[in-house]
Amino acid sequence: MSDIEIARAANKKPIQEIGAKLDIPNEHLLPFGHDKAKVSEEFIRSLSGKKNGHLVLVTAINPTPAGEGKTTTTVGLGDGLNAIGKKAAICIREASLGPCFGMKGGAAGGGYAQVVPMEEMNLHFTGDFHAITSAHNLLAAMLDNHIYWGNELDIDIRRVVYRRVLDMNDRALRQVVCSLGGVANGFPREAGFDITVASEVMAILCLATDLADLEKRLGDIIVAYRRDRTPVYARDIKADGAMTVLLQQAMQPNLVQTLENNPAFVHGGPFANIAHGCNSVVATTTALKLADYVVTEAGFGADLGAEKFMNIKCRKAGLKPEAVVIVATVRAMKMNGGVDKKDLGEENVSAVEKGCPNLGRHIENLRKFGVPSVVAINHFVTDTDAEVQAVKDFVASMGSEAILCKHWADGSKGSAELAKKVVQIVEGGTADYKPLYPDDMPLFEKMETIAKEIYRADEVLADAKIRNQLKEWENQGYGHLPVCMAKTQYSFTTDPTRRGAPTGHSLPIREVRLSAGAGFVVAVCGEIMTMPGLPRVPSAESICINEDGLIDGLF
Amino acid sequence: MSDIEIARAANKKPIQEIGAKLDIPNEHLLPFGHDKAKVSEEFIRSLSGKKNGHLVLVTAINPTPAGEGKTTTTVGLGDGLNAIGKKAAICIREASLGPCFGMKGGAAGGGYAQVVPMEEMNLHFTGDFHAITSAHNLLAAMLDNHIYWGNELDIDIRRVVYRRVLDMNDRALRQVVCSLGGVANGFPREAGFDITVASEVMAILCLATDLADLEKRLGDIIVAYRRDRTPVYARDIKADGAMTVLLQQAMQPNLVQTLENNPAFVHGGPFANIAHGCNSVVATTTALKLADYVVTEAGFGADLGAEKFMNIKCRKAGLKPEAVVIVATVRAMKMNGGVDKKDLGEENVSAVEKGCPNLGRHIENLRKFGVPSVVAINHFVTDTDAEVQAVKDFVASMGSEAILCKHWADGSKGSAELAKKVVQIVEGGTADYKPLYPDDMPLFEKMETIAKEIYRADEVLADAKIRNQLKEWENQGYGHLPVCMAKTQYSFTTDPTRRGAPTGHSLPIREVRLSAGAGFVVAVCGEIMTMPGLPRVPSAESICINEDGLIDGLF
Repeated sequence: MSDIEIARAANKKPIQEIGAKLDIPNEHLLPFGHDKAKVSEEFIRSLSGKKNGHLVLVTAINPTPAGEGKTTTTVGLGDGLNAIGKKAAICIREASLGPCFGMKGGAAGGGYAQVVPMEEMNLHFTGDFHAITSAHNLLAAMLDNHIYWGNELDIDIRRVVYRRVLDMNDRALRQVVCSLGGVANGFPREAGFDITVASEVMAILCLATDLADLEKRLGDIIVAYRRDRTPVYARDIKADGAMTVLLQQAMQPNLVQTLENNPAFVHGGPFANIAHGCNSVVATTTALKLADYVVTEAGFGADLGAEKFMNIKCRKAGLKPEAVVIVATVRAMKMNGGVDKKDLGEENVSAVEKGCPNLGRHIENLRKFGVPSVVAINHFVTDTDAEVQAVKDFVASMGSEAILCKHWADGSKGSAELAKKVVQIVEGGTADYKPLYPDDMPLFEKMETIAKEIYRADEVLADAKIRNQLKEWENQGYGHLPVCMAKTQYSFTTDPTRRGAPTGHSLPIREVRLSAGAGFVVAVCGEIMTMPGLPRVPSAESICINEDGLIDGLF
Repeated sequence: MSDIEIARAANKKPIQEIGAKLDIPNEHLLPFGHDKAKVSEEFIRSLSGKKNGHLVLVTAINPTPAGEGKTTTTVGLGDGLNAIGKKAAICIREASLGPCFGMKGGAAGGGYAQVVPMEEMNLHFTGDFHAITSAHNLLAAMLDNHIYWGNELDIDIRRVVYRRVLDMNDRALRQVVCSLGGVANGFPREAGFDITVASEVMAILCLATDLADLEKRLGDIIVAYRRDRTPVYARDIKADGAMTVLLQQAMQPNLVQTLENNPAFVHGGPFANIAHGCNSVVATTTALKLADYVVTEAGFGADLGAEKFMNIKCRKAGLKPEAVVIVATVRAMKMNGGVDKKDLGEENVSAVEKGCPNLGRHIENLRKFGVPSVVAINHFVTDTDAEVQAVKDFVASMGSEAILCKHWADGSKGSAELAKKVVQIVEGGTADYKPLYPDDMPLFEKMETIAKEIYRADEVLADAKIRNQLKEWENQGYGHLPVCMAKTQYSFTTDPTRRGAPTGHSLPIREVRLSAGAGFVVAVCGEIMTMPGLPRVPSAESICINEDGLIDGLF
């Protein structure tokens, strides 16, 4: 059966029953249909005194076209922990609607380790991203409206840095000239649209601890500069209050369920390049109050996702992860070892061995955060015993352990061993989380630290303009912010074709951006596409409702 | 107490109890929170054999700044009918989010005749408009994507007629040049954004009878023309299936409640100028299967709203209204009689008498549709007995009846007399609905018929280009469509300052537009603003969540 067929055959329980597993009273579950609910702000506030459960991060090797199954393993581990008697919840990100109409939609997990309802999670879900689109664009409209009515703040219309957003792959909107058509429509200027997940408002929603913090951060967004280069904030445009109103409901985490009827919080979905790419702080901290074990994931591979999870999300939210699961597959090891995608079906132990250093690098890197890790080998039907053993041997040689997991085929039965290992690590109590760099390190040094410690680059290249910009931000009081690296996810270097565990490279920083509301400085190392386009034949062409009333073509 | 204070003090019942009043089983109510729900498609299909209840339209005189209270009276009459023992439901339109951040938000009714929850109805509600925004913009993105990848359909990029939409007042987006920035972003062309309610997709959602009809109509949207002037349809872009998927849930009517816990369907919200401005056909026809009396309203005054309700919605949906309520206020009569807004507090019987012909014209006009009417005088605290009597006397002189209604202050107690009168009219069985013109009348003659019969214009002015365009559409098979007049709502003429009941004027048609998917030809008689702007001090500046966690500034 395909993922979607398995998802449709799910024996879903009413969402109130799922909430009851976490002791959430019905009146604090705001239902969206029968299988989705938001958890009320009031209930979340009432949890503040409670003890936290244990936080487990699922991350992965550098992604390859072979697929790793990070979300699948997150779901599988959550189910596995529940199956061995732990009260566990998972925390994953919401999917962006737009891209589902370009390439086929992303499932939430796969096989027998999925979160449902799958269709809705890939469409409007509970409307969070629509709320972000509205809030984001309200600020944009108010900004141009301010200019229109006299520009009291003296905004330089050539220096408006705040763009608009749509949750749609629409390359025609990347770069536009707006306010054309004469006096009634304002002052023509260059503008553009990003996809909603790339919005700073999205990053803010995912990092804000509560509504007050959300409002404060929204007010901190820099929307433009004056001719004297001083920043103009969303607060100056007086948009922060109304944006908060538009986001009030979106701030409440969404509860759904796994195929095994275990609780899953699906909330937030910031881009993992220009933002930090993690499930919302509100969802994660709420889950930690309600469950003994919380399994969450971070975007891309561990060099990007786990690094930001540790250095941005955990640092800022005061989270202390106690175990990390690094997902690897035999197929991805083979691709890292130089095998072509079309040849992945054939046994090739030496290619597996040749690819393993990529995994080894991630194992080493994660130790720098003080959190013990285990490798999950996400099993694929074509994997041979010898190949699996090669990965296990390699990981053992690194002083760590790799566990074969079959949750894709068998659900929690297939992940029981991993779950037990995670419990053993957590109960061992050896975790001592620490971020990689201190708040008070200069911004450029923070970038160097990540480049050298995580990417193993020899040096960071940045011209004087970038270094001066960073100093200027330090002088303005932004020096304490963490940095958010925007780099290809396919390699430790900025060259997506360099797999494995390269050394001796340089990290060129092309551009730096300040996300003053989200609270980080973005270092752009390569191309960043903040508004995708549709392919020649978009999946939308074959998406429809079929004769049985089911959605075809979305998956 | 203010409207919002009254709304917040409402003793709301769980939406399942409201559904039960209409015999909707719980499993067919898709909840959105505890006080909103969508009615399932499956349940709606199951109703097809059932008998229809009685349909009552609430319309009004030409609106004035004094306010008429059309929605308030719709709600009051619904509650009044329930109070006198009839099983009644109301059907009103959803509010647009964007404008609430410009001027203060629109309530759904007022005083003790309101629909709740008020805040959410003015914000994201159940996400219908967001779904329309997504579906609309998906087609736009696919259209530019088609051009980008080779333009196989040979679209003339100067003749793209399909714009994009946002539910936001954003004048900067009215006219833009898109696809700038080089090869990767497409071919630069002129484009623009409308507000979501002005989308043809919105009009289609409100006129479609079911999902299959929705998909067919979406496919019929004309998005562009080739150099040889032949039209390119959404179907040619292969967007109709995916748009239908995005709109599947939005097609399900929303059920909420009045302050007196009676059922209210709030669904659809097309612009009342470039579209027909009525509650969705699906909501109205569903309500008719479930209730004995269904009270609905139409946008603007009766010259625009009721005319389109009769000639477009009822004609196309096979509805047969049995009674019409024309809402008037003493204050509006005074304004029609020449009194300034600031002087409305003073008694002025002669001004009331002078303004009454506006009401009289509407009474006459509605008779042309074969549906008997009654006038509801929506009482305001400053109205004097003599003024009210003047309206009653005038209406009596027209051979009709006016009833003083106090639902704003007293809820259903205040509308009991009106409810009894409506029942009397319906049970009298004299209604014999007929549209004003037949399908097979030429398009220009249809416009002339409305101009002469409803607006009482002497002639319709249109240059040869417009007349030829209409003939071309007739040749293409669109001659059978009804026409949708876009004219100022403030006057029977195209001059918004000409109140009362003018005669001897001309109706100039500036432009005609074909909404092939919605199924009407729009006659533009004056300025149409399809993307509003924000005022100098938008209400958004003072919208926020206050210390009590309540929304301030929205109302």
